[in-house]
Amino acid sequence: MDNPFFKNFGPFKVSHILELLNLKNININLDQYITDIKDLYMSNTGNITFFHSKKYKDVAKNTKASFCLTTENLVTDLPKKCIPIIVDNVLVATSIVTAKFYPESIHDNFDNDVDEIKDTKFKDKIKFGKNVLIGINTKFGDNCIIGHNTIIEKNVSIGNNCSIGSNCIIRNSIVKDNVKILDNCVIGKHGFGFFPNDIKNLRYPHIGIVIIEENCEIGCGSTIDRGSMSNTVIGKNTFLDNQIHIAHNVKIGENSIIAGQVGIAGSSIIGTNVKIGGQAGISGHLKIGNNVEIAGGSGVIKNIADNSKVMGYPAKNIREFLKENK
Amino acid sequence: MDNPFFKNFGPFKVSHILELLNLKNININLDQYITDIKDLYMSNTGNITFFHSKKYKDVAKNTKASFCLTTENLVTDLPKKCIPIIVDNVLVATSIVTAKFYPESIHDNFDNDVDEIKDTKFKDKIKFGKNVLIGINTKFGDNCIIGHNTIIEKNVSIGNNCSIGSNCIIRNSIVKDNVKILDNCVIGKHGFGFFPNDIKNLRYPHIGIVIIEENCEIGCGSTIDRGSMSNTVIGKNTFLDNQIHIAHNVKIGENSIIAGQVGIAGSSIIGTNVKIGGQAGISGHLKIGNNVEIAGGSGVIKNIADNSKVMGYPAKNIREFLKENK
Amino acid sequence: MDNPFFKNFGPFKVSHILELLNLKNININLDQYITDIKDLYMSNTGNITFFHSKKYKDVAKNTKASFCLTTENLVTDLPKKCIPIIVDNVLVATSIVTAKFYPESIHDNFDNDVDEIKDTKFKDKIKFGKNVLIGINTKFGDNCIIGHNTIIEKNVSIGNNCSIGSNCIIRNSIVKDNVKILDNCVIGKHGFGFFPNDIKNLRYPHIGIVIIEENCEIGCGSTIDRGSMSNTVIGKNTFLDNQIHIAHNVKIGENSIIAGQVGIAGSSIIGTNVKIGGQAGISGHLKIGNNVEIAGGSGVIKNIADNSKVMGYPAKNIREFLKENK
Repeated sequence: MDNPFFKNFGPFKVSHILELLNLKNININLDQYITDIKDLYMSNTGNITFFHSKKYKDVAKNTKASFCLTTENLVTDLPKKCIPIIVDNVLVATSIVTAKFYPESIHDNFDNDVDEIKDTKFKDKIKFGKNVLIGINTKFGDNCIIGHNTIIEKNVSIGNNCSIGSNCIIRNSIVKDNVKILDNCVIGKHGFGFFPNDIKNLRYPHIGIVIIEENCEIGCGSTIDRGSMSNTVIGKNTFLDNQIHIAHNVKIGENSIIAGQVGIAGSSIIGTNVKIGGQAGISGHLKIGNNVEIAGGSGVIKNIADNSKVMGYPAKNIREFLKENK
Repeated sequence: MDNPFFKNFGPFKVSHILELLNLKNININLDQYITDIKDLYMSNTGNITFFHSKKYKDVAKNTKASFCLTTENLVTDLPKKCIPIIVDNVLVATSIVTAKFYPESIHDNFDNDVDEIKDTKFKDKIKFGKNVLIGINTKFGDNCIIGHNTIIEKNVSIGNNCSIGSNCIIRNSIVKDNVKILDNCVIGKHGFGFFPNDIKNLRYPHIGIVIIEENCEIGCGSTIDRGSMSNTVIGKNTFLDNQIHIAHNVKIGENSIIAGQVGIAGSSIIGTNVKIGGQAGISGHLKIGNNVEIAGGSGVIKNIADNSKVMGYPAKNIREFLKENK
Repeated sequence: MDNPFFKNFGPFKVSHILELLNLKNININLDQYITDIKDLYMSNTGNITFFHSKKYKDVAKNTKASFCLTTENLVTDLPKKCIPIIVDNVLVATSIVTAKFYPESIHDNFDNDVDEIKDTKFKDKIKFGKNVLIGINTKFGDNCIIGHNTIIEKNVSIGNNCSIGSNCIIRNSIVKDNVKILDNCVIGKHGFGFFPNDIKNLRYPHIGIVIIEENCEIGCGSTIDRGSMSNTVIGKNTFLDNQIHIAHNVKIGENSIIAGQVGIAGSSIIGTNVKIGGQAGISGHLKIGNNVEIAGGSGVIKNIADNSKVMGYPAKNIREFLKENK
């Protein structure tokens, strides 16, 4: 993933990273520099990556990263030129290293560097309500509208012909042309991702962003969290109703229709032309195919093949469900 | 439905309407005027109406409309003096014609014509917080209270003794006496209604309003959408808890109690004295009888008779459900 | 429960209380004073309490209250020195008497006595956004951050190192150190508690508060209602995701993790180290043990023993559920 928004505070020396992880006596050239942290797929020479599950061994074999946080039993799947750094808990170590490179991606304290829009260069370009606040590193296309009390924090790019409602908060997001975001939405906040710890949970960084493609509509009171190591994406011409929650790293395809109060848990991938009825929930890390229809109130806990219609909890073939539940 | 708020931009000549719909060579007097668009039931002489399903044939037979958008196979159910206009897709055509009469009912861009309440005639009549905004065509009874940052957009009528919380947004709504609307509600927005289209979905107009009758309470963070061709109505003394979503055209009877996070999909009719437990969902276009009790978490997908108690997904008789699920 | 926030308008003479309840010809010394109303457990000499169900007879036997609202058939379980006051409906009578002692706890009209933070003594102590409002009787620890448009109404105590997001509303709450409350939350509002009445429901007072212990995080758009006769408590280091609803009197233990759109109904007690998946719902007045895992989308309608994993609606043992629903 390309990261357009969060500042990379690297490079850091290998010695520095090992120290962070409390690792000693490791046989690596400590004076080398590590330039960035990326996933197995996106990494390049000079980067550090992470590999924590056999599931990813095929990607691991081809990673271009120079370093990899991993465990003893996964080491053999890495290419020779990628130097393994063995840790007890790959995800915790990844979190610590990511936090070093991107310290500003961990906490979402309110953006104190906003200005009232009337004091910015956008004052004549945008039609805006009362009390609108605009952060640094923001861009707007032509013909945009922003409602009262809305806060566009830093790191936001809005396309042409967009209408943002009142009382919205947007940060770390790219919104393409002709998108409508209705009142009271919160978009681009970090996801619900952390390592549980009995004293104080350890938040992991969220360096992904939210991308809302052309012609989308996002209903009132919806929340769309930004990704951790990848982006959260709403595909073209996809419409979301009110009070929907889209968790971090979720990707929704084009032309989908999602009714009120639906929730989609982290990292699930939804196809194109998918219809999801009200209050349905989709567990994390699932793949929902194209042209799928999910009945309202369903709870989806498995992948769903293209062109399926499902219903129930756990969701199954809709005909079967209705036959069993006459 | 009487439409108190949206401006009717008609009348329009028949020729104009046919042109909009790309209809040619139709044997009608093109110079007649059409004054308004209404449903089969509410239409009068000079109006155009629409008839898209056999379900409505009894109403169709008695419509007083002068014109009707319909299909070849429904024509015979119309009265003789109602001139049929045959179209491929009745609802799309209805949407196009409604948009012509009521162009301001399609998009809910923020209301730019609001004033700070302290600069309005209401400043001495209402007890209000900081940063309260009031639109044109608004009315308030005696003894009303409006919290901080709340936006009463245009076309709102509030009765006596109403308390509106902070951070609310209300538009196109009639709120009767003694109603309490808690913080963060969005009331009167257009519903989630549109015709899917692979390039750009076509929103249909919502010329209905929201009516909240006497003595109601609406919980924090709830959304109540206005109707498309009819109104969304919350009956007298009905209480809604937090984070509830009421979709367009829904009607809820008197003395009902609806717990947190319930969702009611479009056009469903809920009786009087109905109790709905938390997180229950009700599909669209259903009829829930009087004195019905719906257990929390239920998913209702069929009409429910008066005095029933139901539970489960799909919801069924509660005793049966509990016996089967010991 | 100790009540730090609501002003006690007592003491009141016994005669005054009996008059309120329309009780006559009762053989009690009418000139005695009643100092406060508390539950059976917390009451002391001079207080009035209430006893409405056999369930509480063991607590009733040991109450130190001087007076007790109760019914004929429960009287024998009270200690001799506690004077019974027999009423038709104990909870309605309790509500009426509580409203007399704590009239400010019934309605949550917006707090009109707030000031802009820049005009308060906190202006140099707190890092704050635009349009932040602060009520009377508020306290803040060191190193706190408050986002734009947030309203801290009266009766709020915030600890050290807390970060409150934008567009939040907080009242009647104690927030301990290192707590993070994200955007758009409403915390400390009265619960959804009232006695249904065909003309106008009778709201009962909520004299409890919300307590959020150290190191918690509360996700965007969540609502946490304050208690009626006890407090609503979120235990240390417990994390809530977005759009969660926690009803009045709920207590959640330490180190729990609650995913998006979960709802917990009134008076339920959740143990420590509990994990609740997205959209799960928990009925009121339940006890969920320690180390319990509740799968996303579940509907819990019974108590759950320690260390259980449950799923389904109604929730049952997760293995059993998955076996039955292959």
